Amino acid sequence: MAVRYELIKTCSQTGARLGRLHTPHGTIDTPVFMPVGTLATVKTMSPEELKEMGSGIILSNTYHLFLRPGHDVVKEAGGLHSFMNWDRAILTDSGGFQVFSLSDLRKITEEGVSFRSHLSGEPLFISPEKSIEIQNALGADIIMAFDECPPYPADRDYVKKSMERTYRWLKRCVDAHERPEEQGLFGIVQGGMYGDLRKESARQITSIDLPGYAIGGLSVGEPKELMYEALEETTPLLPVDKPRYLMGVGSPDALVEGVMRGVDMFDCVLPTRIARNGTTMTSEGRVVVRNAKYTRDFGPLDPECDCYTCRNYSRAYLRHLFKAEETLGLRLTTYHNLYFLLKLMEGVRQAIQEDRLQDFRNQFFTKYYGSMNSDAMRRGF
Amino acid sequence: MAVRYELIKTCSQTGARLGRLHTPHGTIDTPVFMPVGTLATVKTMSPEELKEMGSGIILSNTYHLFLRPGHDVVKEAGGLHSFMNWDRAILTDSGGFQVFSLSDLRKITEEGVSFRSHLSGEPLFISPEKSIEIQNALGADIIMAFDECPPYPADRDYVKKSMERTYRWLKRCVDAHERPEEQGLFGIVQGGMYGDLRKESARQITSIDLPGYAIGGLSVGEPKELMYEALEETTPLLPVDKPRYLMGVGSPDALVEGVMRGVDMFDCVLPTRIARNGTTMTSEGRVVVRNAKYTRDFGPLDPECDCYTCRNYSRAYLRHLFKAEETLGLRLTTYHNLYFLLKLMEGVRQAIQEDRLQDFRNQFFTKYYGSMNSDAMRRGF
Repeated sequence: MAVRYELIKTCSQTGARLGRLHTPHGTIDTPVFMPVGTLATVKTMSPEELKEMGSGIILSNTYHLFLRPGHDVVKEAGGLHSFMNWDRAILTDSGGFQVFSLSDLRKITEEGVSFRSHLSGEPLFISPEKSIEIQNALGADIIMAFDECPPYPADRDYVKKSMERTYRWLKRCVDAHERPEEQGLFGIVQGGMYGDLRKESARQITSIDLPGYAIGGLSVGEPKELMYEALEETTPLLPVDKPRYLMGVGSPDALVEGVMRGVDMFDCVLPTRIARNGTTMTSEGRVVVRNAKYTRDFGPLDPECDCYTCRNYSRAYLRHLFKAEETLGLRLTTYHNLYFLLKLMEGVRQAIQEDRLQDFRNQFFTKYYGSMNSDAMRRGF
Repeated sequence: MAVRYELIKTCSQTGARLGRLHTPHGTIDTPVFMPVGTLATVKTMSPEELKEMGSGIILSNTYHLFLRPGHDVVKEAGGLHSFMNWDRAILTDSGGFQVFSLSDLRKITEEGVSFRSHLSGEPLFISPEKSIEIQNALGADIIMAFDECPPYPADRDYVKKSMERTYRWLKRCVDAHERPEEQGLFGIVQGGMYGDLRKESARQITSIDLPGYAIGGLSVGEPKELMYEALEETTPLLPVDKPRYLMGVGSPDALVEGVMRGVDMFDCVLPTRIARNGTTMTSEGRVVVRNAKYTRDFGPLDPECDCYTCRNYSRAYLRHLFKAEETLGLRLTTYHNLYFLLKLMEGVRQAIQEDRLQDFRNQFFTKYYGSMNSDAMRRGF
């Protein structure tokens, strides 16, 4: 099997798990945060920088690569690893989430989804088979089933139908998958915020033996409390010897809360996107480096951080780069934010190892958000 | 003296010189090309990347730093080296060229230049004293005299007056300079395309003992033949034991031709600016990576280049990054173009050492431009 999960330890206080994810491009300690490299590049970063900060796996987006440069081009280049010069692990999503997000531009049938390119307007079609064909061409270590992800809120009837379709589509994905020895296909549990539907979806999806399972349909606009509740209902239904991947989650609080509810893998554009807007995550909470108050602040972005940015540059310099619209600024804040989340996950793994995750969580939240239930936490980062 | 030039060898075939420039932040082999870091950053590059490619000296712009973040901020940060995390040599220009380029926004008097910020419209004033005050605050290893640089074409009377003012301003710069032990002040020869005025300017400027001299007023729109002619008339009038700096020149042909006429230092935004537009300099001439013909070109940008970009990425990937507007593309082409010019200068130095610069020039031009007198060469890069 292309991907194998090794459970090292289960937390005595929470649902957290310590594990290892073995892939054809290296072994990754879990729980893990995966930086997002939508278009075969983690925006502003070089592969060497990602390695230096300790990133062992990144995510790329099937929908975007299908449009540009085209999966055939990537395949001809020898696959995504070779094309983008990244020799560690890669996960590709199925493209489903992106095409469903096109709303007015798409039409869903049992066969698949017709949509128009957000770039050219060209009419296109992705089915479970097509998604797997594209992902087989891209060649990531982990590929995702083509599912239907309902928005929040969505009525029970719609969620039920889409959950059942997701199961039928998963079977088509498994049949279409041509490289199971090299690429691990993960199924995705749906069911929205309806406990019984989640339960039914988990039963359906895990009835197929796959190297990993994702929890889909969360972090789509619902309050965090609902997301945590859904997680609590879902992860106990997933096999303990397989990794669980919560898609689209990357705020510090949700990462920690997710881990405590048994999640092993996360991805999100949040750290890189806010970095390019000048917003950074530090040990003392958010710092918006554009702010005028940093004009003469010659201290590091985060005094407790030992990343490349914090070791070499001041808040004043970062602010200057952002005011002057210099791309080095985007690089430095992106580097820091990713490093911050990777270090956070390192701390989380250490805490699980030492049976003190609950304490770790309380200390981190108090320091980062100022209080355990602040507005900042509710807003998300 | 803050800056000292050591002449190693004079070419037997041409006016080229091999030398070493000793500065408080390291020794630089000359002839040298200096990458431009206008706003305290060489656009898209990190200091480590510049070091890795072998850059020992970069240029920053006084006018831009005066406006953003302000020289007082840079001074408080401990100077430009500390502010931007660059521990090798820096040269700052005087700001003169930029304020004169503002045309309608500025007014010149004997005292100095009144102008409006191109950013805020705020009325500002730079005199020789102010320029030196700013440059003393920035703390570069080499600083430039505040001169008046006439455009091309300009009538003789205007060029003569501005040349004489440049001399008077130089004396004020020397008097205002407060850190001669740490920062070497270079004078600038003017005189436009008028041989007798250049001669007179060279006599005036070199009558003041300075650690180096620049040749100004060239590369301002005149045909290259005129520039080469002016160089031939000027460099023999400059002291052999001081470095000669030709400002604003960075096309491959002009670098080589400049060296052959006795120039030791060059700077230009050309390699970095065209890189951000997707245009690269390779051993076989220009390559515009955006072009559709590179969609499936999986070979390196320049098969003869061993830079980071050429060792790790394909033309197809570079094209993809540019089409997708990913900043990694700007980084990779910028890295390559700077590396290309630094390697070119390394080749030039080697050729001077081995008394074969004329052959080196002929071979390089034939390969790069296709012929020795192509349109590409006339256009400049």
